[in-house]
Amino acid sequence: MSDHRTIFFLIGNLLAALALGMLVPAMVDYISGENDWLVFIASALVTGFIAGALILTNRGSLPPLSVKQAFLLTSSSWLALTGFAALPLAFSDLGLSYTDAFFEAMSGLTTTGATIIVGLDDAPAGILLWRAMLQWFGGIGIIVMAISVLPMLNVGGMQLFRLESSDTSEKILPRTAQIAGSITKLYFAISVACMLAYWVAGMGLFDAMAHAMTTIATGGFSTHDASIGAFQNSGVEVVGTFFMIAASLPFVAYLQAANGKFSVIWGDAQVRMFATLLALATVSMWLYQMSYHPTDGGTAFLQAAFNTTSILTGTGYATTDYGLWGPFAISVFFILTFIGGCAGSTSCGLKIFRLQVLIKTGWRYVRQMTLPHGIFVIRYNGRPLANDVANSIVAFVLIFILSFALIGTSLTLMGLDTLTALSASAAALANVGPGLGPIIGPSGTYASLPDGAKWILCFGMLLGRLEFLAVLVMFSPSFWRR
Amino acid sequence: MSDHRTIFFLIGNLLAALALGMLVPAMVDYISGENDWLVFIASALVTGFIAGALILTNRGSLPPLSVKQAFLLTSSSWLALTGFAALPLAFSDLGLSYTDAFFEAMSGLTTTGATIIVGLDDAPAGILLWRAMLQWFGGIGIIVMAISVLPMLNVGGMQLFRLESSDTSEKILPRTAQIAGSITKLYFAISVACMLAYWVAGMGLFDAMAHAMTTIATGGFSTHDASIGAFQNSGVEVVGTFFMIAASLPFVAYLQAANGKFSVIWGDAQVRMFATLLALATVSMWLYQMSYHPTDGGTAFLQAAFNTTSILTGTGYATTDYGLWGPFAISVFFILTFIGGCAGSTSCGLKIFRLQVLIKTGWRYVRQMTLPHGIFVIRYNGRPLANDVANSIVAFVLIFILSFALIGTSLTLMGLDTLTALSASAAALANVGPGLGPIIGPSGTYASLPDGAKWILCFGMLLGRLEFLAVLVMFSPSFWRR
Repeated sequence: MSDHRTIFFLIGNLLAALALGMLVPAMVDYISGENDWLVFIASALVTGFIAGALILTNRGSLPPLSVKQAFLLTSSSWLALTGFAALPLAFSDLGLSYTDAFFEAMSGLTTTGATIIVGLDDAPAGILLWRAMLQWFGGIGIIVMAISVLPMLNVGGMQLFRLESSDTSEKILPRTAQIAGSITKLYFAISVACMLAYWVAGMGLFDAMAHAMTTIATGGFSTHDASIGAFQNSGVEVVGTFFMIAASLPFVAYLQAANGKFSVIWGDAQVRMFATLLALATVSMWLYQMSYHPTDGGTAFLQAAFNTTSILTGTGYATTDYGLWGPFAISVFFILTFIGGCAGSTSCGLKIFRLQVLIKTGWRYVRQMTLPHGIFVIRYNGRPLANDVANSIVAFVLIFILSFALIGTSLTLMGLDTLTALSASAAALANVGPGLGPIIGPSGTYASLPDGAKWILCFGMLLGRLEFLAVLVMFSPSFWRR
Repeated sequence: MSDHRTIFFLIGNLLAALALGMLVPAMVDYISGENDWLVFIASALVTGFIAGALILTNRGSLPPLSVKQAFLLTSSSWLALTGFAALPLAFSDLGLSYTDAFFEAMSGLTTTGATIIVGLDDAPAGILLWRAMLQWFGGIGIIVMAISVLPMLNVGGMQLFRLESSDTSEKILPRTAQIAGSITKLYFAISVACMLAYWVAGMGLFDAMAHAMTTIATGGFSTHDASIGAFQNSGVEVVGTFFMIAASLPFVAYLQAANGKFSVIWGDAQVRMFATLLALATVSMWLYQMSYHPTDGGTAFLQAAFNTTSILTGTGYATTDYGLWGPFAISVFFILTFIGGCAGSTSCGLKIFRLQVLIKTGWRYVRQMTLPHGIFVIRYNGRPLANDVANSIVAFVLIFILSFALIGTSLTLMGLDTLTALSASAAALANVGPGLGPIIGPSGTYASLPDGAKWILCFGMLLGRLEFLAVLVMFSPSFWRR
């Protein structure tokens, strides 16, 4: 695995796309008369220069990627993109250190939505657009990876979603290109639909565009410090709820539905479980709010639906400080943080299919105990579940829990209080964004955290977004053996 | 499974032993001139009457237990013993409701150590002795079960500790009797040693006896509201630390060591991991305390060692309110709460061997990803680990987490704050005892909790003590099918 030219070449291409992307906020800022347009031009030049160098020195007939190189590419491309995407934020007038800029960029590209910027309402349009674009790029990036690369790498049970019975990695590249094409078109179409819906509901066109990008990415960056709550518009909240749900369902199912197979969506076990869980959580939050803070039933229901959806899907918008709803709400939201949406969507966390496999494994064992010689086969979506899939899901969950504990305790060593530390750890790993408590809760920001804590959380966001194992595999000595 | 005479007969015998046990505090109270001796006599008469009725109506040639009946016996015997063990507490002058008495008895028999009694320092000697005896009985009960019954029932990976390759339940009874004999002698001997050590260190004889019983049971009931901290005696703390550790190692290994095979103890992978974990946690707590609350190094080390051991082993003694040590200590203690000691000891929680199997499973998967066609076998204590053992451990962990979440959120619905609710849930399921925060922390009690919360926690303690699956299997419809 000494020939890494393919990796460099591909990263060069991704950086070139990033540099082109920087021209969009540059134009917006130029048109609206902001000085910040120069910041984006400068960043685009730096990024474009490095991209060009990588492409020119590594082009030609390139060797196919090995499995190990696919892992290397996954982590290093995400890191490289974050490093350069942070440039406009660091160069801007916002006064961010590079640590802060890197944190914000990582939070964007991993579709987490944790922010360190205070005063979004007065920030230049270009910066707001750039943050939204990062989430939008991150969202499409993760869907493409979840469909094409991760199943091939057997990461955390994602092999369940392998589209064909090919085990070799030689087909990764052409297959990726083909899937990326259809999914990107679809992603673009849903984003436009979301933007129009927000606009019809009463948002300005710029806000509608920025929020559509971060809704479809289940990212959660907003153009206002008060998040979606700033609009005080129930139509906007209905639109947001609908599209956050849409963005948490498997995008492949939409492709099949577009070919006339509508039943595919509801026929997917993940979708049914996700809908059930969301309905249950929304109704309990609604009833809890109604009994402890009696308000208008309709308002309370919309608040419950919007904020529950935002947490479960890992988006991280808020319309109210749900940290004040009471202990039951706090603990339910804390649990929902870990779960996330369906595999093959932009949402994050444990994911519904893993929860289902875990529950089926547990239940089989209970039955097995009463009938020790009975044979029970676990089926998922009608097909028997291979043992290695179940094992890899167990490994995933274990590593999720260990990472949560390690990152949480490290943060307490940085001086964070227990609730802030543990909820920040969960919110980063599950790419949700806001945590709990007065500092990093839905009405706070991550700005006041020490730099060390920010770097730890950056690592946590990357770990969570790349499904843990894709990053951690590189810490295994056998990875570096020939 | 219609013939339940064997179950009734065995429960009758256990209740008869309980009734006899009640005579001990009766004597102690009579000698020390307390009125409470009548309470114990009355409770002994009621318990003895029911026990006699059960024995007399079900004696004769009894059918052997089926697997399902072994499950039924496990849960129902624990419940019946708790119900009657609560009588002296309910009848006493302490003014406890039956709910409170049942909670205290369940906390005793499950060796949890959560208490609802305020004013232990002024409580009659008989009551203090009874609480200690309940934990001591519970401790020996669980060791016998863990060695004889649970492995036969394939509960949560306990089949790893099956002593012979017999799969049938017909041998449960004679085998149980044989093992119970040797282990009980050993348990008694270690308890006497612990009592003498406490006495030499400076405790009064009564306190030494009561604390020896609750130390060896890793139970944690004390005769003082301030727990072991009341003695302000570092000798006592050293003795306590040593015997809590001794009680968390596998008792079967002691039996083998008594036959000259000393190497068996350190040769056990569980013991090595337990020692490593304990050393690491103690040293981090020590360093953390030294850097944030600089005190004398020796005092700080003993405080760190004692309280860390108490939490990890699930004992629940305290020498200080470690809730005030700071966020890092709180989160580390919260995590240690879940872990517990070795299988086949009196300690509770997830248990070391399950943690080891989980880590090995996770690590194998990471290696498997880099070598998709490699074959990796998980070994435990040198022997390859069967797939069904790994699966049953996964089922155990999953059910632990789900129970933690469900009980924690139910408690918030009863009006408890988030930290109290979540730490109470963990402390009950892992049979640790004290939780975190001002209400149920090491310097508080469970007295002020609503009755509903107490019953939920009783169920949690039973669930945790009987390794979850032994209780939950009865909620499976196939259990009740013929």
